[in-house]
Amino acid sequence: MAEQSKKWILMVTAQTPTNIAVIKYWGKRDENLILAINDSISVTLDPAHLCTTTTVAVSPSFQQDRMWLNKKEISLDGARYQNCLREIRARANDYEDEKKGIKISKNDWQNLHVHIDSYNNFPTAAGLASSAAGFACLVFSLAKLMNVQEDNGRLSAIARQGSGSACRSLFGGFVKWVMGKEEDGSDSIAVPLVNEKHWDELVIIIAVVSSRQKETSSTSGMRETVVTSALLEHRAKEVVPKRIIQMEEAIKNRDFPTFAQLTCSDSNQFHAVCMDTSPPIFYMNDTSHRQVVLTSGCILSCVVAYTFDAGPNAVLIARNRKAAALMLQRLLFHFPPNSDTDLDSYVIGDKSILKDAGIQDLNDVEALPPPPEIKDKVPAQKCKGEISYFICTRPGRGPVLLPDESQALLCLETGLPK
Amino acid sequence: MAEQSKKWILMVTAQTPTNIAVIKYWGKRDENLILAINDSISVTLDPAHLCTTTTVAVSPSFQQDRMWLNKKEISLDGARYQNCLREIRARANDYEDEKKGIKISKNDWQNLHVHIDSYNNFPTAAGLASSAAGFACLVFSLAKLMNVQEDNGRLSAIARQGSGSACRSLFGGFVKWVMGKEEDGSDSIAVPLVNEKHWDELVIIIAVVSSRQKETSSTSGMRETVVTSALLEHRAKEVVPKRIIQMEEAIKNRDFPTFAQLTCSDSNQFHAVCMDTSPPIFYMNDTSHRQVVLTSGCILSCVVAYTFDAGPNAVLIARNRKAAALMLQRLLFHFPPNSDTDLDSYVIGDKSILKDAGIQDLNDVEALPPPPEIKDKVPAQKCKGEISYFICTRPGRGPVLLPDESQALLCLETGLPK
Repeated sequence: MAEQSKKWILMVTAQTPTNIAVIKYWGKRDENLILAINDSISVTLDPAHLCTTTTVAVSPSFQQDRMWLNKKEISLDGARYQNCLREIRARANDYEDEKKGIKISKNDWQNLHVHIDSYNNFPTAAGLASSAAGFACLVFSLAKLMNVQEDNGRLSAIARQGSGSACRSLFGGFVKWVMGKEEDGSDSIAVPLVNEKHWDELVIIIAVVSSRQKETSSTSGMRETVVTSALLEHRAKEVVPKRIIQMEEAIKNRDFPTFAQLTCSDSNQFHAVCMDTSPPIFYMNDTSHRQVVLTSGCILSCVVAYTFDAGPNAVLIARNRKAAALMLQRLLFHFPPNSDTDLDSYVIGDKSILKDAGIQDLNDVEALPPPPEIKDKVPAQKCKGEISYFICTRPGRGPVLLPDESQALLCLETGLPK
Repeated sequence: MAEQSKKWILMVTAQTPTNIAVIKYWGKRDENLILAINDSISVTLDPAHLCTTTTVAVSPSFQQDRMWLNKKEISLDGARYQNCLREIRARANDYEDEKKGIKISKNDWQNLHVHIDSYNNFPTAAGLASSAAGFACLVFSLAKLMNVQEDNGRLSAIARQGSGSACRSLFGGFVKWVMGKEEDGSDSIAVPLVNEKHWDELVIIIAVVSSRQKETSSTSGMRETVVTSALLEHRAKEVVPKRIIQMEEAIKNRDFPTFAQLTCSDSNQFHAVCMDTSPPIFYMNDTSHRQVVLTSGCILSCVVAYTFDAGPNAVLIARNRKAAALMLQRLLFHFPPNSDTDLDSYVIGDKSILKDAGIQDLNDVEALPPPPEIKDKVPAQKCKGEISYFICTRPGRGPVLLPDESQALLCLETGLPK
């Protein structure tokens, strides 16, 4: 490393999607390496609506590793960050940019400090598992910066050490996290099943629930389930392996009824083992229950699947745009916005679904007729204000580099957040 | 049967307690005979606070079998009523009352009609499984009327055909329903474990939740769980048998910490298998969750156990009066009554617990300090109006006859409700 080049800053910016599991990960067999007790399968969400953007920079002028998340500096001391940094540095390679006069040899990376700036394009308070996109983006961008030659599968085993579900954000489309057998976790990696083009009819609507009790973190929650649930081991060893095979087949064949049945059942079972924990963990609340009950018409006719992660938000997967429009009508009928909310901020993401549903403004929402399937059966329940907003999205692609320097979050001169 | 005695009416009145399971019954192996897929254990509740009173009458002047429940005539056509009536009649014996000139031979019972009047001393809307006390009382009183010579264990196998949990209401104290092995259900009976004197320190507080969604009936709910849950069989075959042994031991030794841990865990697991059903069954709501969370101080210190049946009501079992008074303070702090409710109708049953808690009126409720264990941790949550009322009670005795004719619900002259 030449002394005269102390001033240079080398920088990489990447964007990584988040993902939602349709066969759930719950329970670790190794807390430090983050090794799961069962395989899981997820769908990657379109980064246009939900993603993390991360810029990583390296410079001989940096005095220490530093990180900013959503514009606030945070500590990198945690084992999860340290594990990712160590694993990436261990795989770094020689780098040379003659034009800029930068030359970094393989061993230099151990002594060079990095600056990391990360940003989610969705509210962190929404409880949308930002850590999956976050750690995937951290590992992916650092790997590119440090000229790591490994493929995304190998990188997923590093991202996994930041946050288990992060490994699945290294690919687009549908992704399987293979739990693996090795003690060192080297075979506990993400594998792409099909890319985002394979089943591009699907529409995903996320209902972000307004009032939120303090939730158990998924890390401590799954630890408690492993220790206290009498059902978890049976789920992991007997139930999930069969579902994984069926789910892969359903995805391959775009068999929506089977996909929906497995997705709903596995979400139910994840919340069941949470309930079977001592003390019990309640992630779904009355609003979540109502979403299941009130969309049951769509669910029973096999055009919509639901899944709930470690929080009350419903993730609804519609078979196609027509089913999505129908479901959005029902959702808006039962969960209209508060009077001080405008439609534009109540339904975000891919707004074309709103158009398909024939809804242009709040008057259209108020004029929605009661869904036919509930007529005469249950009173038309209106739960105003229970949902904070809806995000319309779809299956999306895996990580990408953003080569345009204007998209970098760090300043090329100072190495500090712009 | 002498023609001249057409006018006589023979009558019996009995009182039978309800019960709450601490190891739950969920799932039948035979729908018609009502045979369970696992043993269960319950505690019988003091009939002073929760019971059914039933008068059964027989007369040659009655034209058909008739029944009144809580002052309204209901149909006896259902298979469950018919099964109980048939089984009791098949075991009827000769009866003679020379003074009244009544003589009924064994075979006459097949042709004599009965009138049945049944009344619960607690609101039916409370969701307190009135069918357990109801069918137990129906079978017990009919057996006495028809001079059936079988013991309460044999009678429990008949009550079981009315409502599974009814078999456990044939005894006081703690009761085990042995699932049995026989195809005809003859060995699927209730067995008394210890009587109500054995562990008379226990205090039971039932929190009746105000707002109630339409709930899945336990009959259809458990049928759906049997068909769709991937966890129920494991629970029934692997988990419950061990818990039954541990629970019997805990009850025998009055080992409250073990009793509480098993009771809470088994309640959790029952709701877990409901959640694992397709579509999922949600019996606990946000109020139920809050009751678990807000009493967790008492639960963690092993002085209180909770259990939830097929509805949102919490049944809280306190180790002794001191623990009950402490818990009632916490419950009233977090769940104060609506301003239009008086304390006398808000805490019913054994009101001496209120006195132990130092609470005489609503001013005392308002003056309750936040529980020490939540200080600085969570905001002192107040959920006014979420609970409709509390019932304070204790373990109680089994069925009894009420020989005093003034307590009969039917008129001795007309055979109709008084």
